[in-house]
Amino acid sequence: MASFASDNTAPVHPKVLAALATANNGAAPAYGNDRVTARLRETVAEVFHCPDVSVFPVFNGSACNGLALARMIRPYESILCHRQAHINNDECGLPEFFTGGKIVPIDGFGAKLTVAAIGDTIAHALEHAPHTSRPRAISLTQSTELGTVYSMDELATLTAFARTHGLYVHMDGARIANAVASLGCAPHEVVKGVDILSFGGTKNGAMLAEAAVIFNPVLAEDFAYIHKRAGQLPSKARFVSAQLQALLEDGLWLELGGHANAMARLLAEGLQTVAGVALLYPVEANELFVTLPRPVAQKLFAKGHQFYPWPAEGPEAYRLVTSFATTKAEVDGFLGEL
Amino acid sequence: MASFASDNTAPVHPKVLAALATANNGAAPAYGNDRVTARLRETVAEVFHCPDVSVFPVFNGSACNGLALARMIRPYESILCHRQAHINNDECGLPEFFTGGKIVPIDGFGAKLTVAAIGDTIAHALEHAPHTSRPRAISLTQSTELGTVYSMDELATLTAFARTHGLYVHMDGARIANAVASLGCAPHEVVKGVDILSFGGTKNGAMLAEAAVIFNPVLAEDFAYIHKRAGQLPSKARFVSAQLQALLEDGLWLELGGHANAMARLLAEGLQTVAGVALLYPVEANELFVTLPRPVAQKLFAKGHQFYPWPAEGPEAYRLVTSFATTKAEVDGFLGEL
Amino acid sequence: MASFASDNTAPVHPKVLAALATANNGAAPAYGNDRVTARLRETVAEVFHCPDVSVFPVFNGSACNGLALARMIRPYESILCHRQAHINNDECGLPEFFTGGKIVPIDGFGAKLTVAAIGDTIAHALEHAPHTSRPRAISLTQSTELGTVYSMDELATLTAFARTHGLYVHMDGARIANAVASLGCAPHEVVKGVDILSFGGTKNGAMLAEAAVIFNPVLAEDFAYIHKRAGQLPSKARFVSAQLQALLEDGLWLELGGHANAMARLLAEGLQTVAGVALLYPVEANELFVTLPRPVAQKLFAKGHQFYPWPAEGPEAYRLVTSFATTKAEVDGFLGEL
Amino acid sequence: MASFASDNTAPVHPKVLAALATANNGAAPAYGNDRVTARLRETVAEVFHCPDVSVFPVFNGSACNGLALARMIRPYESILCHRQAHINNDECGLPEFFTGGKIVPIDGFGAKLTVAAIGDTIAHALEHAPHTSRPRAISLTQSTELGTVYSMDELATLTAFARTHGLYVHMDGARIANAVASLGCAPHEVVKGVDILSFGGTKNGAMLAEAAVIFNPVLAEDFAYIHKRAGQLPSKARFVSAQLQALLEDGLWLELGGHANAMARLLAEGLQTVAGVALLYPVEANELFVTLPRPVAQKLFAKGHQFYPWPAEGPEAYRLVTSFATTKAEVDGFLGEL
Repeated sequence: MASFASDNTAPVHPKVLAALATANNGAAPAYGNDRVTARLRETVAEVFHCPDVSVFPVFNGSACNGLALARMIRPYESILCHRQAHINNDECGLPEFFTGGKIVPIDGFGAKLTVAAIGDTIAHALEHAPHTSRPRAISLTQSTELGTVYSMDELATLTAFARTHGLYVHMDGARIANAVASLGCAPHEVVKGVDILSFGGTKNGAMLAEAAVIFNPVLAEDFAYIHKRAGQLPSKARFVSAQLQALLEDGLWLELGGHANAMARLLAEGLQTVAGVALLYPVEANELFVTLPRPVAQKLFAKGHQFYPWPAEGPEAYRLVTSFATTKAEVDGFLGEL
Repeated sequence: MASFASDNTAPVHPKVLAALATANNGAAPAYGNDRVTARLRETVAEVFHCPDVSVFPVFNGSACNGLALARMIRPYESILCHRQAHINNDECGLPEFFTGGKIVPIDGFGAKLTVAAIGDTIAHALEHAPHTSRPRAISLTQSTELGTVYSMDELATLTAFARTHGLYVHMDGARIANAVASLGCAPHEVVKGVDILSFGGTKNGAMLAEAAVIFNPVLAEDFAYIHKRAGQLPSKARFVSAQLQALLEDGLWLELGGHANAMARLLAEGLQTVAGVALLYPVEANELFVTLPRPVAQKLFAKGHQFYPWPAEGPEAYRLVTSFATTKAEVDGFLGEL
Repeated sequence: MASFASDNTAPVHPKVLAALATANNGAAPAYGNDRVTARLRETVAEVFHCPDVSVFPVFNGSACNGLALARMIRPYESILCHRQAHINNDECGLPEFFTGGKIVPIDGFGAKLTVAAIGDTIAHALEHAPHTSRPRAISLTQSTELGTVYSMDELATLTAFARTHGLYVHMDGARIANAVASLGCAPHEVVKGVDILSFGGTKNGAMLAEAAVIFNPVLAEDFAYIHKRAGQLPSKARFVSAQLQALLEDGLWLELGGHANAMARLLAEGLQTVAGVALLYPVEANELFVTLPRPVAQKLFAKGHQFYPWPAEGPEAYRLVTSFATTKAEVDGFLGEL
Repeated sequence: MASFASDNTAPVHPKVLAALATANNGAAPAYGNDRVTARLRETVAEVFHCPDVSVFPVFNGSACNGLALARMIRPYESILCHRQAHINNDECGLPEFFTGGKIVPIDGFGAKLTVAAIGDTIAHALEHAPHTSRPRAISLTQSTELGTVYSMDELATLTAFARTHGLYVHMDGARIANAVASLGCAPHEVVKGVDILSFGGTKNGAMLAEAAVIFNPVLAEDFAYIHKRAGQLPSKARFVSAQLQALLEDGLWLELGGHANAMARLLAEGLQTVAGVALLYPVEANELFVTLPRPVAQKLFAKGHQFYPWPAEGPEAYRLVTSFATTKAEVDGFLGEL
């Protein structure tokens, strides 16, 4: 039986565990003033071709998003995101809490924002100032909550639009490794025009490690205060940094993300051959949204397979998520039950 | 050379690391619905003699305090604490952020609150309602920021007063193990009358693990929302819980706290024999506040020993902190330089 | 030329001004402990058949909504309202600011909420706890932002649903006088099942006066703190209360609201006879949403008439608002230009 | 019998009432885009010798302070004020609410800040960054909560210090008229080096009218959003502006403030002749803090005179406040009872 419930039910990659043991070497300065964290910054600078990057390791992805957005906006400003975005639906109001501002949800196919939809929202808000919160940032999820991936063209169009309109660009990269692996691009290409990336580790083999990766140096200023005040500055920061370092070294993150994507494609291919099964969105990363006839779903649940009904996409819709730890045997076993 | 800079420059105890490896065993439900977290709750219930206890593992001590206080007060209410409290001085406004309310700092020797000082503050605030935030909680730090420990009698007096006046009692237990070891009491005795304990692991051998331990069942209600909304709900919670479980099993936490205390006493005894050195407060846990003649301090720094000047306590005041990892050889070496 | 720009461009009714002069009679206790405010509470109790009502005079309608909602929810909870609601669009994030919570916008014809739409949102949110803010209040605008009025049946259905699901009911009554006059009901009938009413005065002849009218005594508790902390407790409260008292005495509020409604109907009747003009929504209160051929609109603007384009309702959509001060001559003059 | 309870128990000055009637002249643009508000800005510019001043009329003094401070700091920053300041004691946490930041109370005689005390606080906070909120603004109350007035020299020293240390200067001028009248200076002299003044009207003959007067043009940017989002933007703003205009025209504000001061001095002179009565602070504005033998106080209360015990200043301490409406007859009558 297989767990396709989420990529955060997966365990920790052995190299991450090993890195924690290696980091556990005597006393070290607290609060990120340690060598492991310094090395992480250098690695991120290399990977993303950004010598001046600032990197703030944090414990949690929702918090990482909240910190980034809190740095971008003032409380009377707003963040534009897709209605399906994690920051709109799955963080219990954390972004409003951390920013004081307003989340403005926008529609679009496949959980993707478009320039047209954003443009209307901005025009209306600015005409109505100061009665409507001023749009100040857009938040893109890459890969998206529906398992799609923004193409390089889509990103270029959105970031150019943002720059023109004085909007910061946040990228929620809880699954950035899956996106980069899917696009087959260099990591720095996917963050072109992005001001802050929430770099995700936990869903991709880390234990609990994310980082705010700040490409825009203006936004690095004062970030240390925001980091601390939200309870996201680890006192023993080396143990968060070490996890991310382990992922970034030798391209492990992309290997793991690519593997999860491959398992998702395998699953998608198998499912498509089954009568009554339909994919709701292109499978471009490690999440699948499918309609399954109810008896099929019930049989799978009865066998102990784990995945979630996804009623927001229809009465017979389900979500399946693969991870770095998903095996071909698990996928085959699952498909064999159909 | 020795690091007495802080107990969070220390490494992770080997048993904690081992527990992480053990917990890394295939897929497990996310968000605290795993077996390790369930077992942790049972262990805490046993240790603190509270069958109905609720336990919320979190990443960070400041955040743990903030969550507890956010559950206790409404934004128009206040929290009474000592002026030296971590929540007043060292969290960059996190408690105000998480609660929306007001921190009211109060004076008292050795960083301890007294009923007399609290009583005056409350009386004035209530007379002046609704122009002054209503006192609703007191926060006690055990052991305190000045290395002292509230006695059982002091705690009994304070918690009785709180109960009479409708105030919740929060205990900041970032160093609770040191306090319990110092008092030589049973763990449940030190939390009698406490509504929520911030149980500290990180300063006592964990990697990054604290827990909100809720003794008052009324306050457990809705805590899951507060936990999530603040970015403190670990998706792979088993790896936070496992750290705390490792500490609590077989009394490891008290053994480690007791060791740190013993090293502090050793240091104190040695320092007292040196001309011009004075202890500013009784050394009851693992922190020492001393005056050192400047040449002595400079010689120690020159040898590479690490500890902080503490100007708030005077121009020649310094703080030294021991930890579970401090060795007798380090203490002896340090004292040998004097 | 006529101003149909908004009901808050109107002046103050002479009886309101006279009441201010009357209230200006020597010293009086501050902060609402005066006789005028006490008398206002009694009047509201009579008008709404609620002997235990609590009344908190405030300066501003957005603030009144924010106070009411802040009393109803905790920061991890949400408020369900129509996407067109003032609290969602026109208050620059004040409700998020005052409550700390999340506004969840919902669709529905004529700016009205329906039980079906609310039900789906609640079900999804509760399934997803604690990752989604918990719905805790619904906010109904009466009359709505599109000039429609909830019928007694619609209100009964919504408030019954709310009661069943443990949701508080807030009514944004910035134009409550128009709604009551339109329905021809007794005032207490329109607030049946409502927990807090934002009673509007400013748009109906007051200078600057609204009141939080609390029917649910549970919500009156601690409201004084919320009132004060948000800067909405008038030190010389008698001068806010006197305005509302003047409106409520002898039914002046309903007379004025009814007059504004009548002027709106007159305008609607006249406009409907013009080729190319269409009403977008039923004209049930004092706001009209119409499509006007662009040349017609331009001619009217050129003559100095004031009203707003309303692009959210279409490229040729406009909003016209009447008030207590609108005269038949103004309406006739306006219609005469068409 | 006389009311010395507070200057906000006083009525409204007849010229203010008359100005409201004059402003009530047909339709006018809402939200401060009216002529009365434009004229007020010009008047303020003249009075304070600041052609580029921005003026935002608001309803309430606490809110005015909160808006000003919210513009000055980010949530991870702090405001330094005297422990006795209204923003620290009398606003139920409004400044923390509006700013998200921390209020740091500081001691000093006569409710006055000194450079020495501020300097220590700043040094400690900056050394401890980012664990302590960064000081970013000082708030001076002029006249102070204890009825004293900062001298021109004291102000020059404080504002120079602030400028050097990158701190904004807020002046809480709820009683600014009393201070200017007391100093006998030109109004622009008292605000030299001040970034935003909370200009008070309500305590000095207005009905409910204050204004954020912004001298530093950087801080005017985006203020409109803060103004709106806090529920302090009056829809019918002309009626707030008209009150302030009435006070500022022909120096009425200084005449009224000067009268209140004169009545306070008269009271002080009379009280000093009574055995057992002592003034606790110099009487420089319109507030007196005195010790009265309990039998004396009781006799006065029994006669119906109104004033408050002030236990924070001692068991026999009382506060008396005069206002524009206090008459010599009232003072003489009161003194005659002693």
